[in-house]
Amino acid sequence: MNELELIRHFFARQPVSRADVAAGIGDDCALLRPPAGQSLAVTSDLLVSGVHFLPDADPVSLGHKALAVNLSDLAAMGAEPAWFLLNLVLPEADAPWLERFCRGMFDLARQYDVQLVGGDTSRGPLTIGIEAHGFVPEGAALRRSGARVGDRVYVTGTLGDAAVALLHRLGKERLSEADFAALVERLDWPVPRVREGMALRGIATGAIDISDGLLADLGHVLEMSRVGARIFLDKIPLSPICREHVGKSGWEAALAMGDDYELCFTVPTKNTGALEKLQFACGLHCIGEIEAEPSLRIVDESGKPYHPTFTGHDHFAGK
Amino acid sequence: MNELELIRHFFARQPVSRADVAAGIGDDCALLRPPAGQSLAVTSDLLVSGVHFLPDADPVSLGHKALAVNLSDLAAMGAEPAWFLLNLVLPEADAPWLERFCRGMFDLARQYDVQLVGGDTSRGPLTIGIEAHGFVPEGAALRRSGARVGDRVYVTGTLGDAAVALLHRLGKERLSEADFAALVERLDWPVPRVREGMALRGIATGAIDISDGLLADLGHVLEMSRVGARIFLDKIPLSPICREHVGKSGWEAALAMGDDYELCFTVPTKNTGALEKLQFACGLHCIGEIEAEPSLRIVDESGKPYHPTFTGHDHFAGK
Repeated sequence: MNELELIRHFFARQPVSRADVAAGIGDDCALLRPPAGQSLAVTSDLLVSGVHFLPDADPVSLGHKALAVNLSDLAAMGAEPAWFLLNLVLPEADAPWLERFCRGMFDLARQYDVQLVGGDTSRGPLTIGIEAHGFVPEGAALRRSGARVGDRVYVTGTLGDAAVALLHRLGKERLSEADFAALVERLDWPVPRVREGMALRGIATGAIDISDGLLADLGHVLEMSRVGARIFLDKIPLSPICREHVGKSGWEAALAMGDDYELCFTVPTKNTGALEKLQFACGLHCIGEIEAEPSLRIVDESGKPYHPTFTGHDHFAGK
Repeated sequence: MNELELIRHFFARQPVSRADVAAGIGDDCALLRPPAGQSLAVTSDLLVSGVHFLPDADPVSLGHKALAVNLSDLAAMGAEPAWFLLNLVLPEADAPWLERFCRGMFDLARQYDVQLVGGDTSRGPLTIGIEAHGFVPEGAALRRSGARVGDRVYVTGTLGDAAVALLHRLGKERLSEADFAALVERLDWPVPRVREGMALRGIATGAIDISDGLLADLGHVLEMSRVGARIFLDKIPLSPICREHVGKSGWEAALAMGDDYELCFTVPTKNTGALEKLQFACGLHCIGEIEAEPSLRIVDESGKPYHPTFTGHDHFAGK
């Protein structure tokens, strides 16, 4: 099977067909028709085997996650997903692997009506590049720079579950089979908070998705907004299994390891009523407040300042 | 220097600032304002060290070429470049390398007024992912599927120069220092035919850029257009050095090795007058004609059919 046949076989049969795609896979470029009066939100990610995922990762969940992390970036802007491109470098034209990878990716694409419109395939060490596009009405995007003093700080879902599952997988935590099964879903099958992000338009001021850990990502919001924040450890939403881990091993998994793909956002008090009406199925918790004093202050259960020894993911730290 | 400082230092100082960029680098997504009444053309490429370029490649030309190949895809659709995203995986936060890479990339970006609006950086084996966006008036894009029976087949510039330079670099060809210096520009510093592609709107019917070799790329046009073609070897534009190589070693470098980044396009005879008025500085040659009979026929200098033993680049051929 040559490259073109391979691409055609697996990628041309993608499940979504949108009216705003004038030309999808098969030309030098995709030709797309963005809607009038909306901004185009664009994000991209590059995942390298052995760096961003384990070489023996299940291709079904890998296909899901590679797309999910990009949809999560769109969600953090309040954007509605529309199109994506895929660049795949593969050690060999492995049809069963591709079939499984596509299944994971396209099942998620179908859920969010997002169409694969282009990309390329070549031979080399396994590498996945995805670029995702979405729309958001002009002026309605949730920006990292939007947080204002007095806003409440919220997170969706629970934090730390993916990190604890990863620690177990790496042999650094010991979970029961049932507990691991419960948490590993969060690691391998993150659910991008797309509907939640769109619902937050006009309600939230600043927003980000938590990929590098709450401290690092909320830190970006504070820096871009030129504000600080106070957050309360006892308000951080944790699953029972993660709470047990935190009790034994401390807060690093929940605050700094990342891979949560929850939204962290700020809401002025005048909008908290509108926020509460949204009733997110994934859950929603107020964890603190934006303050004028720069940087982040963490307060523990007894009201005392808490100083983490870790601060978050930095791909080049220490160099 | 941590990741964020690294990104800021080198990428936030990029030279182009466009009015249609509402948010560039530094948020979860770029926020862009595509112009009304135009289609958005999007293309992406993933370049892996040791696969798509030599590990010791000069970072200045690498930065240039990584962006140039994407602008060449936009050119092949007749699109005007506007924005790009860069995902960079680096073995280490090597400031001198990054400075040189950015110089090559941003010098080209400035020439075409194309703004870096997003992307990411992480640690791992050297990998470069670029996505480029451009505009083309609705219905004016040059498509691979547009060739019609009776159209003339044209190519810009000359073919095979980059391939001969690569053969020399790999020790498979022996050029004088001066000859190598003349050709290596074509390999390391390809000039995307952006102005030429835009000028061909309304004149050309089908188009592609030659990245995988004339036979493979013209083959895509024929297949997508459901036509065939006859091309004449003595009409293929060659530089004197490449002509000498072809005389010794045959046609593979000019027809099948690729890396030319010239445009190959088809023009109905009613438009050839308008085409000739364009006066491309890079040169322009009619090499053949579109025919109803499928596939490609090559005719040699004596009028006899020529059957190449090679057909072009296939990243997964033979598997």
